[in-house]
Amino acid sequence: MIDIYTDEYFMKEALKEAQKAYDEDEVPIGAIIVSNKRIIARAHNMTEALNDATAHAEMLAITAAENFLSSKYLNDCSLYVTLEPCVMCAGASYWSRLAKVVYGASDQRYGFKKAGNKLFHPKTEIISGIMEQETGELLRSFFLKKR
Amino acid sequence: MIDIYTDEYFMKEALKEAQKAYDEDEVPIGAIIVSNKRIIARAHNMTEALNDATAHAEMLAITAAENFLSSKYLNDCSLYVTLEPCVMCAGASYWSRLAKVVYGASDQRYGFKKAGNKLFHPKTEIISGIMEQETGELLRSFFLKKR
Repeated sequence: MIDIYTDEYFMKEALKEAQKAYDEDEVPIGAIIVSNKRIIARAHNMTEALNDATAHAEMLAITAAENFLSSKYLNDCSLYVTLEPCVMCAGASYWSRLAKVVYGASDQRYGFKKAGNKLFHPKTEIISGIMEQETGELLRSFFLKKR
Repeated sequence: MIDIYTDEYFMKEALKEAQKAYDEDEVPIGAIIVSNKRIIARAHNMTEALNDATAHAEMLAITAAENFLSSKYLNDCSLYVTLEPCVMCAGASYWSRLAKVVYGASDQRYGFKKAGNKLFHPKTEIISGIMEQETGELLRSFFLKKR
């Protein structure tokens, strides 16, 4: 039997969230959290709407998922996010002990990688470059529009 | 004229917040944010109460201050926190562009320093060790009680 629940499948769902951000004139980044192949949290960047520099898609998704599970720990969950997480979101992932973090496009400027690879919990698996083209394209299109 | 609004003055206020956390059986860390010598946000660690691994004192204080000022940026503000911020909170400070971050006790295990000094915004001034003894003592007392 073919498993339809691939990383691409879930990244498409994160991309739908990013599109919502785009439509609201927010930097288009989306995230979802998956537990046992079920999406338990969806969020998109809301820094402008909330006037909150910490309201990144990942932060909102992590808080929502922990709320949903009534647990501080997401060690059975996977986070899908359209852009490489920043230092803050990598740190949030550390505390929530996510099993897996999957991201799309790389972020040369603000991505966690500039601070090294040790920001995540050692048990968190990191997968990059899933739907890199599509997730990056939405961001490029947003910033082109803004110029 | 003597300026009573020293770093110690404000750290005492952060320590009052940490005491509230202690009394609620949360890891006792407190934070305040100051703008023009006025305290515009107070918060303490609420990770247990909210079942949210991201509900650190600093995160709650930053969100509250940005809400109060209706601004994503805190570039005229100082954050006082009783313990060395973690990677996540250093990242949040980066995005909010805090003018100054003042902390008390060092955190060898989870403090930002283990990931280097470049997590903060280059314009953010970092001051450490203010009331180090008192802020650290409250934490030690909490963990002794827990054993």
